[in-house]
Amino acid sequence: MSTETMSVQEIATAFTALCKEGKFEDAGHRFWSDDIVSCEPNPGDMSEVKGRAAVDAKGAWWYANNEVHGVKVEGPYVHGHQFVVRFTMDITPKGEARASFDEVGVYTVQAGKIVEERFFYGS
Amino acid sequence: MSTETMSVQEIATAFTALCKEGKFEDAGHRFWSDDIVSCEPNPGDMSEVKGRAAVDAKGAWWYANNEVHGVKVEGPYVHGHQFVVRFTMDITPKGEARASFDEVGVYTVQAGKIVEERFFYGS
Repeated sequence: MSTETMSVQEIATAFTALCKEGKFEDAGHRFWSDDIVSCEPNPGDMSEVKGRAAVDAKGAWWYANNEVHGVKVEGPYVHGHQFVVRFTMDITPKGEARASFDEVGVYTVQAGKIVEERFFYGS
Repeated sequence: MSTETMSVQEIATAFTALCKEGKFEDAGHRFWSDDIVSCEPNPGDMSEVKGRAAVDAKGAWWYANNEVHGVKVEGPYVHGHQFVVRFTMDITPKGEARASFDEVGVYTVQAGKIVEERFFYGS
């Protein structure tokens, strides 16, 4: 089904529902624009990744380097063409100790697709 | 103290700490720019309020129309010149039933001051 006729609230709800089921890749594949831009706060290669293939590769890298024990997903929170999702993650990064990570994603929607995902880290 | 020499992380942490103490007005007065813009998702008079005096009046209106039983504040979450704070509120809006409201604010910082606060509502 085309997502172009969905409201931002509907897209936010459907995207977040997939995340709550642990289907993070499905959520991206359904709702990312071909020109998706994925932004992390830290400088480096991963700070701004552009395009579906590159963002898919970023996800594959992350899964290869983190053992995921659990993710709590809260939201969505909606305003205009943007929505926010909170992720509280229980993971073991490769070669490091198991730890909790608390972050939010701010998603920008255009024409029924997510054109930007911007992650904010809790401290 | 001038906030111009503070990093966005420092501003986010100090602003959120005041909110966690229930000092929401102090947080605004210390960190808002004179040109602060405050945005709510719903259409209407309050959807975009500009300037310290108008945003102060918006706050006074809100306090006059909501009895606050408790607010849980989580964050901040930081990325570049923006940060996010989550507010889970237990309030009784005037003439309505006591209820919980879950929202996040996305704050944009320029030159040591918050120039925009944009609220997103949970559903």
